[in-house]
Amino acid sequence: MRPIFTNNFLNSPLGAGGNKGSITIHSPATIANMVCGFDVLGFAVNEPYDEMVISFKEEPGITIINEDEYDLPTQPELNVAGAALLAMLEEITEPVGFELQIRKHIKPGSGVGSSAASAAGAVVAANRLLNERFSKEDLVRFAMNGEKLASGVKHADNIAPCIYGGVTLIRSIFPLDIISLTAPPLFVTIVHPQIEVRTADARGILKQQVLLKDAIRQWGNIAGLVAGLLQSNYELIGRSLEDVLIEPVRSILIPGFDEIKQQSKLAGALGGGISGSGPSIFMLSKDETTAKQVEKQMHSVYEKLSLEHHTYVTTINQTGVKFVSP
Amino acid sequence: MRPIFTNNFLNSPLGAGGNKGSITIHSPATIANMVCGFDVLGFAVNEPYDEMVISFKEEPGITIINEDEYDLPTQPELNVAGAALLAMLEEITEPVGFELQIRKHIKPGSGVGSSAASAAGAVVAANRLLNERFSKEDLVRFAMNGEKLASGVKHADNIAPCIYGGVTLIRSIFPLDIISLTAPPLFVTIVHPQIEVRTADARGILKQQVLLKDAIRQWGNIAGLVAGLLQSNYELIGRSLEDVLIEPVRSILIPGFDEIKQQSKLAGALGGGISGSGPSIFMLSKDETTAKQVEKQMHSVYEKLSLEHHTYVTTINQTGVKFVSP
Repeated sequence: MRPIFTNNFLNSPLGAGGNKGSITIHSPATIANMVCGFDVLGFAVNEPYDEMVISFKEEPGITIINEDEYDLPTQPELNVAGAALLAMLEEITEPVGFELQIRKHIKPGSGVGSSAASAAGAVVAANRLLNERFSKEDLVRFAMNGEKLASGVKHADNIAPCIYGGVTLIRSIFPLDIISLTAPPLFVTIVHPQIEVRTADARGILKQQVLLKDAIRQWGNIAGLVAGLLQSNYELIGRSLEDVLIEPVRSILIPGFDEIKQQSKLAGALGGGISGSGPSIFMLSKDETTAKQVEKQMHSVYEKLSLEHHTYVTTINQTGVKFVSP
Repeated sequence: MRPIFTNNFLNSPLGAGGNKGSITIHSPATIANMVCGFDVLGFAVNEPYDEMVISFKEEPGITIINEDEYDLPTQPELNVAGAALLAMLEEITEPVGFELQIRKHIKPGSGVGSSAASAAGAVVAANRLLNERFSKEDLVRFAMNGEKLASGVKHADNIAPCIYGGVTLIRSIFPLDIISLTAPPLFVTIVHPQIEVRTADARGILKQQVLLKDAIRQWGNIAGLVAGLLQSNYELIGRSLEDVLIEPVRSILIPGFDEIKQQSKLAGALGGGISGSGPSIFMLSKDETTAKQVEKQMHSVYEKLSLEHHTYVTTINQTGVKFVSP
């Protein structure tokens, strides 16, 4: 994906590199849960990403300018990036004002961390303006306010990988305990069927109680996945990408889910599942050729169902939010 | 602990090194669950261990000779080591007979893998006699029959570390999927209060359903523990040694549990909890001095309660069952 800022945008006082004191970033999509790590695992990908430009403004407070087609709120307290920045401002004693331009490429509601990209990108960029006053952990804390606005729950499984890059484990939210996990090279194929699954709905259908034996299977798998990532053991990663608790319930909301998964594995994918709360589906592969084969299979399944969809073939983003300028 | 074979035993046809074709092994105690890894994690320790001597005998079948005070059954099908050997014999077409002498030092019912040491030790030793005919995974499979006899359930969280050594993850039992996890040097303090907790009872009191939010916390912790072990991050290991599901229920069966845990942590232990299904309690420490301080605290708590108990200060056994002779 190439930056698609219009000339108008580039020439604006906040355009890329055009103005002293403005920061331009790319904030990546993220895939939460990673199949067996519901609410605790997530990873960042290199595509898609949102573009954001932030600068100080004279009057205190936050001004949001949306430069995309999504018609998101511009009132800071109703905008996920705004909510994250407001949380940050609460911990700054002096009067500060930010102007934030957002060009989203990650469609809201796609299940690849659109709200996290906005919230995390905003606070990472603002923190650069503030000469890195806050730690990454602080930034996660601020950005979770955006998630709360988007889904009603403070969760960090998109926020943390968006800020830290790579694969992250959120061992605990209260207190916050984020662990970066190294991973071997992995290719990621994502398909986003153009249907809407609200995070709040996807949460609502989950049972509050689960069988102990299923929970044991799940923590055997997450332990296997973490070991597989840290030991660069692709086969173990593949075997561990199993979710006996959440996927059977949530996948019902996603047309073609079972066939996508089956065909992707036949094409050589290590495994995969629902991205976040859906409707996007992701698959991991050892190499790009396989990842592209998987993409073909995804196209084929959704073409049969006449379901509009977008696909991405990408890799794990190791750095999180990226500074484009200065 | 020093070997305590009597002269009589050493001079017997099966005594240590005394007879061509006999194999002498030490089979180590193991600590299952490792706090947050119920049913899937376990590790072997260097003390205590059982001593066993195995040799071929002329007539097919299994003869068991107990050389200790525990009055365990000698009928193979009622003895955990016998049950494991019988499972092995089922996969051997030719007629084979084993004579097995067992001197247990790991008290049955102590919660540190006494039955696993018998079952695993027997099949590892027999396999050496058979020129390593079977894989480690086969041996785990055979030995699980001993666990089934002891507790009613085939489980491998003691068997696997006893055979593989170190810390093992049993991602899945059916099909069997065992992963060895490297760990930084760790000292282990164990206290065995002289009360009886039957594995079957300890299983019986567990609820079959758990809250999803508790399960999430548990798999955050097991993921953290696996990462901590593989990344040699002691602090992370310590933070992850938390069990919100099993310990609150089972610890009620163990007098002084909460105080032992609290005092051990005050003495510098990284953390710990119930060993297997109890009643033994284990604590992990970074160094031997701390592990011995922890032992003192354990003594002190149980002396106040006038509860007879044994303690061990040991390390992780990296090799599993050890061949002593030949």
